[in-house]
Amino acid sequence: MTDFIKACIKANEEISLAIKEGFDASWFEKTVVGAGGDVSSRLDLFAEEIFVKHLGAFGQIDSEESGVIGSGEEKIIIDPIDGSSNALSFFPFYGTSVAKVNAQGILDAAVVCNLVNGDIFLKSDSTEVQQGKLFSDTFHTPHTVPHSEIGLFEKAYANPDLVAALGKEKLKFRAPGAIALSLAYARSVNYVLFMGEFRIYDFAAGLALCEGLEVIVEADYVIVSKDKTMAKKIETLIKNR
Amino acid sequence: MTDFIKACIKANEEISLAIKEGFDASWFEKTVVGAGGDVSSRLDLFAEEIFVKHLGAFGQIDSEESGVIGSGEEKIIIDPIDGSSNALSFFPFYGTSVAKVNAQGILDAAVVCNLVNGDIFLKSDSTEVQQGKLFSDTFHTPHTVPHSEIGLFEKAYANPDLVAALGKEKLKFRAPGAIALSLAYARSVNYVLFMGEFRIYDFAAGLALCEGLEVIVEADYVIVSKDKTMAKKIETLIKNR
Repeated sequence: MTDFIKACIKANEEISLAIKEGFDASWFEKTVVGAGGDVSSRLDLFAEEIFVKHLGAFGQIDSEESGVIGSGEEKIIIDPIDGSSNALSFFPFYGTSVAKVNAQGILDAAVVCNLVNGDIFLKSDSTEVQQGKLFSDTFHTPHTVPHSEIGLFEKAYANPDLVAALGKEKLKFRAPGAIALSLAYARSVNYVLFMGEFRIYDFAAGLALCEGLEVIVEADYVIVSKDKTMAKKIETLIKNR
Repeated sequence: MTDFIKACIKANEEISLAIKEGFDASWFEKTVVGAGGDVSSRLDLFAEEIFVKHLGAFGQIDSEESGVIGSGEEKIIIDPIDGSSNALSFFPFYGTSVAKVNAQGILDAAVVCNLVNGDIFLKSDSTEVQQGKLFSDTFHTPHTVPHSEIGLFEKAYANPDLVAALGKEKLKFRAPGAIALSLAYARSVNYVLFMGEFRIYDFAAGLALCEGLEVIVEADYVIVSKDKTMAKKIETLIKNR
């Protein structure tokens, strides 16, 4: 395991411990529109600060909240809280997302963590994708479910026509609201579908974890499935809607 | 805390520990159509067995899986795994649901537990709703968020017209797929909406936890919100669609 990935795990453990102590009332305050286009909460900024402390030495950080921080040949792309609206509603599906791009422009590390149950997903350029738990040294190949009954559809609320098309095909879904995290679980669900504008903060790490799966990325949608036929089928639904 | 509620907590702790050890390969096997109309998995039956062991002495159990078990003046309504499809896809939003109806026909205890993070919600006839964690003795009034940005919409996948109507009103939602659990989080989200047939296993405990909130129950939908205007607004969307 690289020092960078170890530092990512440490940062996630520190954020996780702080959250377990209870949410600080100030975390619900909104601040200004961040680099990713959403209004940052103090929870996002709190998590960002911890990532900067642990990862700042490895390169220049580009965060969904504050944009570019520090300098360095390597670029570190972070979404300090993936699923902020969930976290701030105590809806238990939110996490963090970190990706590193080396001086040659190659993505060489990705870490996505579920802050609710400690599930953590890792990828470095020298290893396969691995899954483990915070505060544990054991990692394994990610859980795979061959015949899952559910897909994950991010931004379903803004796409009723596609909800109807999936319904006709009996392609059940959940709409959980944290994109990097949904991509991290791609191997154990039927499909992951995102409809909307592609933002690097949402996808850099999550897509790196989808190595070996069928991945379709377009300007206004992303589809991932372990089943190529399923991915193509969903793309056809999008095009014919 | 009543002995019944203590026994519910013990049962949830035993299920939680078993799940943390890792999912048994046999749990993914489907068996027969249960009393609630869905095909039971061995995971459901495994959890049911633990509830029967801990709660059988308190009365007659009516389970979503096996229907009526044992006998007694008091009736105990359980959904051993709320969100089975999620659990079997390692999608981390699933739990358990238990309600007790006394010999006078009054619901006098409700316990809903999130098996992913240990959140547990309790209601007995002598106390207010309380929230805590498995393996902890501390309880508090449930988290409330005054201005949450998200609702929870159960069975969104089967209701594209309502997805469109909510979208026009900018009423964002998540669709998480475990009804009792979604009801348990009703105080910290904008609204909870369920579209579909009312089944006692899904709602008995969850609705008991919604005491003091605006609750609208009809044959084909359930709406809960801490904001009466919001609940009425959603009902109007349903009627006008």
